[in-house]
Amino acid sequence: MRQPWPVDVPRLTYGITPPKLSFDAQRRATLAEQQMARIRGLPVDALVVYDLQDESSRTDAVRPFPFLQTVDPLEYATEDLAGLAADKVVYRSVAKQGEAEMLAWMQRAQQRHVSTIFVGAPSRDATVQLRLSDAYRLRQANCPELQLGGVAIAERHRTRGEEDARIADKQGAGCSFFISQAVYDVTATKDLLSDLWFRSVRDGNPMPPVLVTLSPCGSLKTLEFLDWLGVVVPRWVQNELREAGDILQASMDTALAAFEELHAFATAKGFEIGCNVESVALRRAEIDASVEMVHRVAQVIGRS
Amino acid sequence: MRQPWPVDVPRLTYGITPPKLSFDAQRRATLAEQQMARIRGLPVDALVVYDLQDESSRTDAVRPFPFLQTVDPLEYATEDLAGLAADKVVYRSVAKQGEAEMLAWMQRAQQRHVSTIFVGAPSRDATVQLRLSDAYRLRQANCPELQLGGVAIAERHRTRGEEDARIADKQGAGCSFFISQAVYDVTATKDLLSDLWFRSVRDGNPMPPVLVTLSPCGSLKTLEFLDWLGVVVPRWVQNELREAGDILQASMDTALAAFEELHAFATAKGFEIGCNVESVALRRAEIDASVEMVHRVAQVIGRS
Repeated sequence: MRQPWPVDVPRLTYGITPPKLSFDAQRRATLAEQQMARIRGLPVDALVVYDLQDESSRTDAVRPFPFLQTVDPLEYATEDLAGLAADKVVYRSVAKQGEAEMLAWMQRAQQRHVSTIFVGAPSRDATVQLRLSDAYRLRQANCPELQLGGVAIAERHRTRGEEDARIADKQGAGCSFFISQAVYDVTATKDLLSDLWFRSVRDGNPMPPVLVTLSPCGSLKTLEFLDWLGVVVPRWVQNELREAGDILQASMDTALAAFEELHAFATAKGFEIGCNVESVALRRAEIDASVEMVHRVAQVIGRS
Repeated sequence: MRQPWPVDVPRLTYGITPPKLSFDAQRRATLAEQQMARIRGLPVDALVVYDLQDESSRTDAVRPFPFLQTVDPLEYATEDLAGLAADKVVYRSVAKQGEAEMLAWMQRAQQRHVSTIFVGAPSRDATVQLRLSDAYRLRQANCPELQLGGVAIAERHRTRGEEDARIADKQGAGCSFFISQAVYDVTATKDLLSDLWFRSVRDGNPMPPVLVTLSPCGSLKTLEFLDWLGVVVPRWVQNELREAGDILQASMDTALAAFEELHAFATAKGFEIGCNVESVALRRAEIDASVEMVHRVAQVIGRS
C-alpha cells in the first residue's frame, strides 16, 4: 500500500538564512530582489527561512564562522520577500523569550499565513525561558491554525535512539511535518526513517512526512562548520571532499546520491520523502549549486 | 589508473568453521565429503577455515550460542579436506600458546602450503602468552614463505579511527591481504576503505587487498550473536531482518546490496575488492544461501 505525501505539506523546499542585521536598506532590498528572482524559477513548494542561533553553548570548540545577528526571519519572509508567492516556512527559536512575546509572534505568523518550525535551546546548558513543549502548548491553545513542523535529527537518533518517539510526541503536539538537519550520513538517516516507518505501521498511524535537508558544502571551512553544528559527515565523505579538485561539486554529488538512496529506500517501503535544499552561503558558486541541486532533486522525486 | 588485484591473493573465498570435536569419525567424514562436493562447484579461489575462540572475555553479555571446541582448523583443512584442490586460508588464534608451539604450527602450515591469518586475543583482558606482533615476528624470521593475511575490522576503525594505520603496520609485518569481519554497516566499511585508499595514494603504496566478508543471517538469534561478536548491524538493517517474512533472504539481499555498493565505490576510485562468503551455520537453508551468495558475488565482480 502506497502512502501519498499529504497535500497540505510542502515536499520540496528551498532554505535560506535572513540577511545580517548590519546590511543597509539598499543592500537588503537588492538581496531580496535577487532571492525572489531566483526562487521564482525553482520547482519548490515553499521557501524555508532559518532563525540562526549562536549555539556556542552546545560545544567548547571555537565556532568556525562568527555568529552575526540577522534580520527577523518572519519579517524577512513576509515583508522583504512579500513579492514571492511561494508558501513560507519560518523557523523560530523559542528559548529566549517569555510566553507573551512568543504568543504575539505566533499570532503574527498565523495572520501572515506562514508555517513555522519551533526550535528549542541548542543545549541543556543554554538559558531557557520557554521550552519547546511550552511553545507547542501555547500554539495548540491559541493558534491551532498555524501550521507547525518539527526538526528531525538523525544524529540524535544514533546516540540516544529515541528520535522516533520524539517525533511521535511532536506529532501529538501538533507537528504535521519534519525537516532534518543537513544529511551526509545516509545510514543514520535510514535508521531514523526505518524506525519511524515500522513504528507507524505498528501503531496504525501514517508515516510522518520528513523532508531530508541537503546542503552543498563549498569549502573545508564549511565542512568544519557542519561538524561544529553536530552534523555527522562520515569519514569517507570527508575524504572525498578534502581530496576533490572541486569540493562543491563533490559535495553535491554525494548529497544527491544520499538523497537518491533514501528515496529508493522509502519507495521500496511504500512511503514518500521530501527534500529541503539549503542555500546558506553567500558565494555565487554555492548559490548556483543549490539551484542546480533543487532541479536534480525535482527529477528524483518525479517533478521536473 | 586502475590497480589490479594481486595474482597471488585469493579474491573470492568461502569461509567455514571446522566441525565440533564431539563429532564421531563417521559424522566428520560425511561432513567433509559434503563440504568438498559443495565447494568444488563454487567459483572461489580459496577456502577459508576459521579458528573459533570463546571470546567471552570481550563482553559481559551472555553468549547467545554456547562455545564448543572444534577440530583443529589446519588439520581439518589439510587432512579431512585433502581431496579439495582449492587453496586454503587457515585462521590461527595466537594468544594461548608459547613460541615453540606457534613456530611448530607455522612450519606445519608452510609445509602444507596453506595461507594463514593470525588472530590476536579477543580483548585486552584475555590471558595472553603470545601477542600478534610476536607471531608476525616469528613468521618473518622462520617461515617467510608462509603467505600471511590479516584481519580488518571496520567497527574498530569507527571507534578508534586507526585501523588503516594498523593495516599498514600489518603489511609491514608481512600481511599481503586482509579479510574483514562480517559487514552489515556499509558506511563503516566505506570509511575504512576510503582511508586505506587515500593513505596508499599519499604514501605511493599499492592499496591493500581487502576481502569483504558477507554472512547470511538466518535467525534473530544469529542477529543477536553478530551483535555479541561486535559486528555493527545498523538499526535499519535490524528492522528489515526482524520484520522480514524471510529473514535469511532479507539478510542476503542486504549483504549483497552492501557488497555492490562497496564494489562500485572501489571501482570508481580505481581499486578492486574481494569477498569472503561465510557459511558458519549448519542449517540446510543457510548453507544453500551461502552458495547462492557466492554465485551472486561472482557476478558482481565479473566472474561467472
